[in-house]
Amino acid sequence: MRVKTSFSRQAFMATIGASIELIEPGEVHIELPFSPHLSQQHGYLHAGATAAIADSANGYAALTLAPVDAEVLAVEFKINLMAPASAPRFLARGRVLRPGRRLSVCLAEVVAVNGPDQEVVATMLSTISIRPGRPERSPA
Amino acid sequence: MRVKTSFSRQAFMATIGASIELIEPGEVHIELPFSPHLSQQHGYLHAGATAAIADSANGYAALTLAPVDAEVLAVEFKINLMAPASAPRFLARGRVLRPGRRLSVCLAEVVAVNGPDQEVVATMLSTISIRPGRPERSPA
Amino acid sequence: MRVKTSFSRQAFMATIGASIELIEPGEVHIELPFSPHLSQQHGYLHAGATAAIADSANGYAALTLAPVDAEVLAVEFKINLMAPASAPRFLARGRVLRPGRRLSVCLAEVVAVNGPDQEVVATMLSTISIRPGRPERSPA
Amino acid sequence: MRVKTSFSRQAFMATIGASIELIEPGEVHIELPFSPHLSQQHGYLHAGATAAIADSANGYAALTLAPVDAEVLAVEFKINLMAPASAPRFLARGRVLRPGRRLSVCLAEVVAVNGPDQEVVATMLSTISIRPGRPERSPA
Repeated sequence: MRVKTSFSRQAFMATIGASIELIEPGEVHIELPFSPHLSQQHGYLHAGATAAIADSANGYAALTLAPVDAEVLAVEFKINLMAPASAPRFLARGRVLRPGRRLSVCLAEVVAVNGPDQEVVATMLSTISIRPGRPERSPA
Repeated sequence: MRVKTSFSRQAFMATIGASIELIEPGEVHIELPFSPHLSQQHGYLHAGATAAIADSANGYAALTLAPVDAEVLAVEFKINLMAPASAPRFLARGRVLRPGRRLSVCLAEVVAVNGPDQEVVATMLSTISIRPGRPERSPA
Repeated sequence: MRVKTSFSRQAFMATIGASIELIEPGEVHIELPFSPHLSQQHGYLHAGATAAIADSANGYAALTLAPVDAEVLAVEFKINLMAPASAPRFLARGRVLRPGRRLSVCLAEVVAVNGPDQEVVATMLSTISIRPGRPERSPA
Repeated sequence: MRVKTSFSRQAFMATIGASIELIEPGEVHIELPFSPHLSQQHGYLHAGATAAIADSANGYAALTLAPVDAEVLAVEFKINLMAPASAPRFLARGRVLRPGRRLSVCLAEVVAVNGPDQEVVATMLSTISIRPGRPERSPA
């Protein structure tokens, strides 16, 4: 519920056309249909769009395991772009590797979906900060 | 010149409202005015938008030092989100740390610009692939 | 075979006491018994030792899928240290996520082994360069 | 003072032969003479040794700006290995990019020193946890 509420306030997700596909304890999937508006210079999905859905999937996966009033923010992430992101539809599958009181570690894969075919095009490893109430992204 | 040409084909940069501010050998700056369309759940710039301009700045910084017919693609990047990205304007400053024939390593900082005040809100370390002609992102 | 040959030339692995536990196509495990000589200031395994065995596991996992005469070198890696590395024995399990002609992407987990108990204490995401013959680490 | 005390308890630094060369507010340098015991399969410094000194330099750089009774632990780091680490002597220069109450972000470069010649062979971007008293590495 709070994942959906928070997601609905992420205007950037609406701007790029992303939506939530699955919410389970420790796992969140975000879907993004391809659009030419999201492309880089060769017509593939821009790495920034790929990173955006993977980052949100990991952050919300962490939120599913966080205390009721907590909020989450990415401290940092690393993404490997492993194949050209060329498909009608993309799915970012975020999963908690290690939940924590203050920091959670999450791993996401971004899959290019073309009918029955799926190919992993990116992998993201993220550190998520868990904060009571309204957080600051600042580590300070 | 080729940086501008390639940038103009990155539809995602136009979608989010980013533009090139500086092109020098080994260094490219990309500017992004804040818009509510780019926000995450607390009203700050979404990490995906922050990453998008830093990724493009690093990629184009690498392109300035690459052979004439080469193209560039990010193999991977890691970004630390160090402070809430809250400002009217952001600047991603990408710089080549080590140019290579096949791979270049670049470092970008994303600065929140509020009138005369500047604060570094993110740092990105990227590995960029240099390819002759039209590249594939695939490492294969 | 070539994994064992190459490993035997990694003097640093002998220096810290690491050995190969498993070699399969796309997967290599490296074992490290704890020793006080490898500790950081709180008596846990030093992050540099944790990273060393995960880096070698990922590199050799990539080598199992590379052409016969190829050699491998880490271009970069990122490691999350998720729990205190405190155990009599550690196991780094490296696995290829995406094999490539020029670059392979690998994921390792480092497990603290205490009798029947196993706990994942670190996760590493690596980019490995595949080169014919004797490589240079330089991306140039 | 506390940097030297803590460093002296890092047995792994003594094992590989590393020592502190400089301690200033926000910056720490660690020196490592090359030894064949630290090599990888091509005779270069093993990435694990490179990472170990860069990790310690970043952690201690963070410690110089932390409260008196605080301790530090790396949450995660990412390192780019940019050139073959081949030299008689290496220097890891860690520097705080953003100090924080709970998390600090640090950047290190590892330089190969050959007489008057210096070459940057690696760059590390780290997230360091700041904890009161005796810390756990666990994010939990």
